[in-house]
Amino acid sequence: MKIIRSREMLAAEIKGYQKKQQSIGFVPTMGYLHEGHLALVAAAKQENEIVVMSIFVNPAQFGPNEDLESYPRDEVHDRKLAEANGVDLLFIPSVEVMYPENLTAEIHVKQRISVLDGAARPGHFDGVVTVLAKLFHLVQPTNAYFGQKDAQQVAVVEGFVADYFFPVTIRVIPTVREQDGLAKSSRNVYLTAQERKEAAVIHEALVKAREQLSKTRDREAILANIRSFIDKQTTHHGMVYLDMYQYPSFEAVTDWMIRLLLPFVYNIRRPD
Amino acid sequence: MKIIRSREMLAAEIKGYQKKQQSIGFVPTMGYLHEGHLALVAAAKQENEIVVMSIFVNPAQFGPNEDLESYPRDEVHDRKLAEANGVDLLFIPSVEVMYPENLTAEIHVKQRISVLDGAARPGHFDGVVTVLAKLFHLVQPTNAYFGQKDAQQVAVVEGFVADYFFPVTIRVIPTVREQDGLAKSSRNVYLTAQERKEAAVIHEALVKAREQLSKTRDREAILANIRSFIDKQTTHHGMVYLDMYQYPSFEAVTDWMIRLLLPFVYNIRRPD
Repeated sequence: MKIIRSREMLAAEIKGYQKKQQSIGFVPTMGYLHEGHLALVAAAKQENEIVVMSIFVNPAQFGPNEDLESYPRDEVHDRKLAEANGVDLLFIPSVEVMYPENLTAEIHVKQRISVLDGAARPGHFDGVVTVLAKLFHLVQPTNAYFGQKDAQQVAVVEGFVADYFFPVTIRVIPTVREQDGLAKSSRNVYLTAQERKEAAVIHEALVKAREQLSKTRDREAILANIRSFIDKQTTHHGMVYLDMYQYPSFEAVTDWMIRLLLPFVYNIRRPD
Repeated sequence: MKIIRSREMLAAEIKGYQKKQQSIGFVPTMGYLHEGHLALVAAAKQENEIVVMSIFVNPAQFGPNEDLESYPRDEVHDRKLAEANGVDLLFIPSVEVMYPENLTAEIHVKQRISVLDGAARPGHFDGVVTVLAKLFHLVQPTNAYFGQKDAQQVAVVEGFVADYFFPVTIRVIPTVREQDGLAKSSRNVYLTAQERKEAAVIHEALVKAREQLSKTRDREAILANIRSFIDKQTTHHGMVYLDMYQYPSFEAVTDWMIRLLLPFVYNIRRPD
């Protein structure tokens, strides 16, 4: 596995793959790899000749009171996991490599972000698409891999890629869960033992909501039931939102036949 | 020469060039071709194996009171000129092909636009970089060709391409002028016979300004001289601005050793 830290050396490697007409599968990450990331790598491995992973904790997608400083990092472990799982090229740029100068032009997400993380984390998705535009141009992937766990991110990225005709196919891979149903996430390390135990309620509540959806279309009733279920199952929780939206517009549910989304999020800020 | 109007057919052609490892020179235009465009084609022809030209009058870069409707168009003539000058692929998309849906994310130019066209035409450069992002992703050029005539556009495009690491080299080609020095421009057809005659003053004034720059660093004096020169040589003029800036920042001149820009612009609105 090659480890590359500069744009110039990455460009030379990518040119080499293109000369050999090799397809490139790209897995952009913020590191602290877990089985969710590895599922993306496995899909990339299966569908492409070359797998490129990036590890970059992107400051542009963190708000001023968020966890940029404390976001978990473990490069040595990440390198071992990436190599063991067949990553061909690991790109680990510094902030200076990714943001060498002030931007002449900024990208602002306008659709699909009026709710959930889009509302709770102003500028977050601007930072996501900004770094992805840069990474897509550097890596020039055939396919890029994202986890379904971050459903609003997937909707924004799919919209952005369609907007500007990026020559890449976005592949969305199902959420990988712990045994008790909690979605794997680098930020799970923030949970105390008690919180970790109670966090299983998130997936239980999702399953419960899906059951109810087969019986009723009463959005308010479902949400109230789920909220009371979560309240009962937990000693305390930092739930920021609980709601139900149409996918991928993230607008109110109007068409019950198409994909629904019922997300829960606990606070992304590191507990003091 | 192939004429292509759909994104899907363009993608197939581009894939074919990439399979053969052919370099692609790209000349984006709004059509109504003149020798300025043909100089871009000639440079592209010399430096690449394949030359792709686009003709698209991009609504996003026109303001509400500008000349979108009346912008000169002559597709039959353009096709002849493109073919005669060795263009391999001419892409002529409709507005629906380039803007199939509302954008999920918008691009806004923030630097290099506080003066000149950036100030006089709000949103103009947002429209320019938006359509270029789309075109660059569709054509995937090795090199893209722009005329030095539109100096602020060149500065914005170079900044934008550097911001997001687009894998394309921007090539800037010197302005092509009429015998009397007027820069070739599709919009010159808007001039009456009298205006066309007097328009030669623009280049004369630029030459005069360059002479004065070799003798003095007094910005105000140079601009006053040039303004009075233009006033004397013309019966009337629709000059929007006359100023002098540092290139490519388009900020006040502070470093006389680096590239200066002294632009004149007459009104881009079609005279009533």
